[in-house]
Amino acid sequence: MFPKFKRTEKIIYFDHAAATPLDREVKKALEPFLSDKFGNPSLLYSKGREAKEAVESSRAKIAELIGARPSGIIFTAGGSESVNLAIFGVMRACLPPACPVGRAGRESRGKLSHLITSAIEHHCVINSFKALEGEGHRTTFIDVDGEGFINLDKLKKSIRPETILISIMYANNEVGTIEPIAEIGKWLKAENEKRKAKNLPKILFHTDACQAAGFLDLNVNRLGVDLMSVNGSKIYGPKQSGFLYVRDGVKIKPLIYGGGQERNLRSGTENVPGIVGLAKALELAQKDRLLENKHLIELRDYFIKKILTNISQASLNGPAVSSKDEKRRLPNNINLTFQGVEGEALMLYLDSYGICVATGSACATEEGDPSHVLLALGKSKKEALSSIRITLGKQNTKQEVDWSVGIITAVVKELRKTAK
Amino acid sequence: MFPKFKRTEKIIYFDHAAATPLDREVKKALEPFLSDKFGNPSLLYSKGREAKEAVESSRAKIAELIGARPSGIIFTAGGSESVNLAIFGVMRACLPPACPVGRAGRESRGKLSHLITSAIEHHCVINSFKALEGEGHRTTFIDVDGEGFINLDKLKKSIRPETILISIMYANNEVGTIEPIAEIGKWLKAENEKRKAKNLPKILFHTDACQAAGFLDLNVNRLGVDLMSVNGSKIYGPKQSGFLYVRDGVKIKPLIYGGGQERNLRSGTENVPGIVGLAKALELAQKDRLLENKHLIELRDYFIKKILTNISQASLNGPAVSSKDEKRRLPNNINLTFQGVEGEALMLYLDSYGICVATGSACATEEGDPSHVLLALGKSKKEALSSIRITLGKQNTKQEVDWSVGIITAVVKELRKTAK
Repeated sequence: MFPKFKRTEKIIYFDHAAATPLDREVKKALEPFLSDKFGNPSLLYSKGREAKEAVESSRAKIAELIGARPSGIIFTAGGSESVNLAIFGVMRACLPPACPVGRAGRESRGKLSHLITSAIEHHCVINSFKALEGEGHRTTFIDVDGEGFINLDKLKKSIRPETILISIMYANNEVGTIEPIAEIGKWLKAENEKRKAKNLPKILFHTDACQAAGFLDLNVNRLGVDLMSVNGSKIYGPKQSGFLYVRDGVKIKPLIYGGGQERNLRSGTENVPGIVGLAKALELAQKDRLLENKHLIELRDYFIKKILTNISQASLNGPAVSSKDEKRRLPNNINLTFQGVEGEALMLYLDSYGICVATGSACATEEGDPSHVLLALGKSKKEALSSIRITLGKQNTKQEVDWSVGIITAVVKELRKTAK
Repeated sequence: MFPKFKRTEKIIYFDHAAATPLDREVKKALEPFLSDKFGNPSLLYSKGREAKEAVESSRAKIAELIGARPSGIIFTAGGSESVNLAIFGVMRACLPPACPVGRAGRESRGKLSHLITSAIEHHCVINSFKALEGEGHRTTFIDVDGEGFINLDKLKKSIRPETILISIMYANNEVGTIEPIAEIGKWLKAENEKRKAKNLPKILFHTDACQAAGFLDLNVNRLGVDLMSVNGSKIYGPKQSGFLYVRDGVKIKPLIYGGGQERNLRSGTENVPGIVGLAKALELAQKDRLLENKHLIELRDYFIKKILTNISQASLNGPAVSSKDEKRRLPNNINLTFQGVEGEALMLYLDSYGICVATGSACATEEGDPSHVLLALGKSKKEALSSIRITLGKQNTKQEVDWSVGIITAVVKELRKTAK
């Protein structure tokens, strides 16, 4: 019934937004810390110091790459932890000794309990906001346009005297929209000057840069952010490695208390191999990104054009790519709706031919709900469930694209036939 | 001036309570997940499923080793996170939608806000308790006797109608005292029956088993615990790997919100190599522990005897070892006070001869404070600062002990001379 393509020998992997393979150089850098150099960095003897030095030189390297001071880098176990640390950390630090009771408490909470984000954030932001709502705090989710760009007017109008945090993702994990972080940062800086004059609390600005770190400029000063989350597993680094950048003078509270590691903001014995690997991965990503982006954009646009030419009633979700503006969409992201085709079925058939693509974001797939991102872009539930995400990586080739387009075309055709 | 011992070729590592090298079999088990098998376990395609299967078979293996159901194992990024998840998780789940304000809030908080621990816990417990105190909750720290055993009478008397959690460590990281967890569990079970009749909330029982997991029985039913924390980096597994056991029916709230991994209790892409390595490490530790313990106890007692024979004004801290009772002190722990010797100086000199020992616990060393554990055992500040911790591992030999005792004896003698 279905096209009799032979599986390729090698799997064709098109889901780099979900997970990237460990880069060979990253693996080489972290390996000594999986064998001989196993010391605990908190210890003052030589075996501890060699681990400590590895952690600190990784911190210095990352700081340099993002234009920060080493003391601003807090290592975490991955991107979700980093984002949670930013959001809950700011919130709990702003509150008077938490859980205030009575009138004074009510007043101080009333003053300090509003935060803003977008409707298309990763679940680690959305669900942190929902948990804070459950604690009685107030939140605003700013909507986006049909390409996924945040409504800047609404953002600007949504701030209140009691707003303490804006968290906007740098680039979207599903449709690749690159949000105008530097523009928001610039506006907020001016806004905070006005607030200062009015004796209102500063609004802190956090960006989830987990999907952006492999492709975009991460300089925290050019971006104008106070907090930034990055993880390793999306940039050819180790899983559950990541960091939160915290600007000098910004107060946050830890999620995890203990031995006081990471300036008391993330206790627990440091994951030395993870940290070393993360620093190496970020170094490679930032060093190679302009060249890499060029290759990916070419491949992406070739892929999209070929699909839209070959398959009817197919459409690209997220920012248009024809504009040649490289700052609107992640170089590796393709998100497609095929009318009349169930995205999950398409994904599973492609898998059976050795091609890995995703439906929606990785973290939400178990639930089978339509993507909240596609819905926010104005797609119907049906359209959202008829979509797949293809995210290219540095190993992908034109041959793989050609081969895959052939299979996608045939499978879509067959699925449409059976659906009738 | 100081004895002219030649450094050994190989470092003699006596700090296994701070960090253990990765076991060769563990490394072998996790390595495929650092290369080919890099998929994100949340994805439904084959590359995701192979990662998912590795996570789930690791979960099943660990569950079997501790007598639990797989759904009771929540993977975390290390021991401190596991402990924090237990303590904050229970606390936030017991509170009505957090931060209650006004009379109703005050009343419900009054009913549900007391927790108990011991004075000699790891900082991840102590500092979590202190953070909760800062939020207005009430805590009790139970004292210990001169050997580090918890005062059971006081523990029993300290519970209140509003008590919701008791957290007692299974074995102490500094002096090796093994606390009577099963006895507490048994008493608490009976106590909870009485409370049920009185319509009082159940008191949950958590144990920090991070130092115990390599040596002791971890069966959660024999121990009678509702929650148990274990990490990998103390049992020859990967750093920042760990889990929290949560008994069926026990409600906790997450520390980290996001994609809903780990039954919504620990979001973030799973650390597949870390999880696979943790399961393998726990399997090896529990399989070999009785044989391993025998070897370690022999070596430990030989070490202690030789030190106390060779060096005057030296004493062992923690449980006596002459009693032949193997259930009182961790098989690998030695903690010694040398009067008139600064522990840190001794540690640094030993390091210069290639011997790694610790002062106090790893996580508190940067501060230079005397160990809170030794103070709780009744030692003076001066005695506490004159102490070192030696924790043996499966690679250590009698030859290493002989060689080290010679150096320790000479260095102690020299340090005492200079101190005069």
